[in-house]
Amino acid sequence: MPRIKLTIEYDGGGYSGWQRQKNGVGVQQLIEEAIKEFSGVITTLYGAGRTDAGVHATGQVAHFDLARDDGGDKVRDGLNYHLRKHAVAIVEAAQVADDFDARFSARQRAYLYRILDRRPPTALRRRKVWWTPVALDAQAMNEACTSLPGKKDFSTFRAAHCQADGPVKTLDELSVTREGDEIHVTARARSFLYNQVRIMVGTLKLVGEGKWTAKDVQAALEACDRAQGGPTAPPEGLYLTEVLY
Amino acid sequence: MPRIKLTIEYDGGGYSGWQRQKNGVGVQQLIEEAIKEFSGVITTLYGAGRTDAGVHATGQVAHFDLARDDGGDKVRDGLNYHLRKHAVAIVEAAQVADDFDARFSARQRAYLYRILDRRPPTALRRRKVWWTPVALDAQAMNEACTSLPGKKDFSTFRAAHCQADGPVKTLDELSVTREGDEIHVTARARSFLYNQVRIMVGTLKLVGEGKWTAKDVQAALEACDRAQGGPTAPPEGLYLTEVLY
Repeated sequence: MPRIKLTIEYDGGGYSGWQRQKNGVGVQQLIEEAIKEFSGVITTLYGAGRTDAGVHATGQVAHFDLARDDGGDKVRDGLNYHLRKHAVAIVEAAQVADDFDARFSARQRAYLYRILDRRPPTALRRRKVWWTPVALDAQAMNEACTSLPGKKDFSTFRAAHCQADGPVKTLDELSVTREGDEIHVTARARSFLYNQVRIMVGTLKLVGEGKWTAKDVQAALEACDRAQGGPTAPPEGLYLTEVLY
Repeated sequence: MPRIKLTIEYDGGGYSGWQRQKNGVGVQQLIEEAIKEFSGVITTLYGAGRTDAGVHATGQVAHFDLARDDGGDKVRDGLNYHLRKHAVAIVEAAQVADDFDARFSARQRAYLYRILDRRPPTALRRRKVWWTPVALDAQAMNEACTSLPGKKDFSTFRAAHCQADGPVKTLDELSVTREGDEIHVTARARSFLYNQVRIMVGTLKLVGEGKWTAKDVQAALEACDRAQGGPTAPPEGLYLTEVLY
């Protein structure tokens, strides 16, 4: 049974997140159903990151064991055929070593957060960006990132129902750039606390609006207290873009 | 009654085109309803281009006469409030001279056509691009554009139910570029025949696949016969991006 690594793109807008849910459909479940249609065998799919409802992916990674010996391209095309009615696509499928684990072998996860900061709302990027009618200062936001990377206690940026062992994580990168009419926040770490990226983005937005300074962000971090952080940014601007192994 | 010029963005995927329709909802109608909610008066909205069902716009232009003397920003924000449930947004609203006519004053209309040419289908750009699983040669497509610009008989690129007076139009620009994993076709003219851009794109795609040469495109043009042109590209890749006055 060859182990298959999938690279997956999905529009999180119509689903209740990556994981199987009691109420609503998870992306994991849709792909597992496609694997069953394709291979005839019920199989569990293991994802690298459990994205929330509304969160998108261009580079989610998952693995499963295929009941027959097909090449990657055939698996990709076969699964895409069975997923054709859904906003879920297999970008790549490849045979990997038997000990590859999409979740536990991952060295780094990368997220992109897109903010559209213009007065008129968007028609073509609905549920694809966080729309805010106030112009944000991308440079000030980027400067306010400085205090966050490194191995630190991120309690300020941790949602209440986080199941991680502790609040200490190593943030490899956090940066903000202006891309046309959007603000892009990029975050990289081996792993994140629950809602960490969205709370960091919600906090940086306060800086972009001129309500907070870079020092306020640093003080919030050092407080190690969720109540001192900014609000949680909504899911629709967040993309899981890459998982490195 | 000040005349108002609107610049409009919409996702054509959920509507039956720009115009009011007997079956289905046109974008024009949605904005007219927003104007009625905003101003209390039933008003006709005149658009620069009648886009088909599924065709998008980032720069559609339309005009109407407002029953009261509000500034552009107030009109824009007010209409957007009433359009908030729809994939339609007013990007700009401005008072213009009384003789401004969105359709008849237009000097040039610009369209963008987006093709995604990769083996895996798309999850995040569904109904936003024309997906083709075969890689296209953008350079060959661009070279094949050469014979088309100028004042010519475009019968080959004219749909059967076109209501234009004649088949002669002046094409100002037609070009093809590679933008990441997409092929972008740009077309500019004072006005186009019905489905002209989509038939030109369908024809250029034959060149991109290596089935046609630039000479075949020129011969098709000179035949002045729709049967000699390529197929009509689907609506979902087409964007009305700009109207110049």
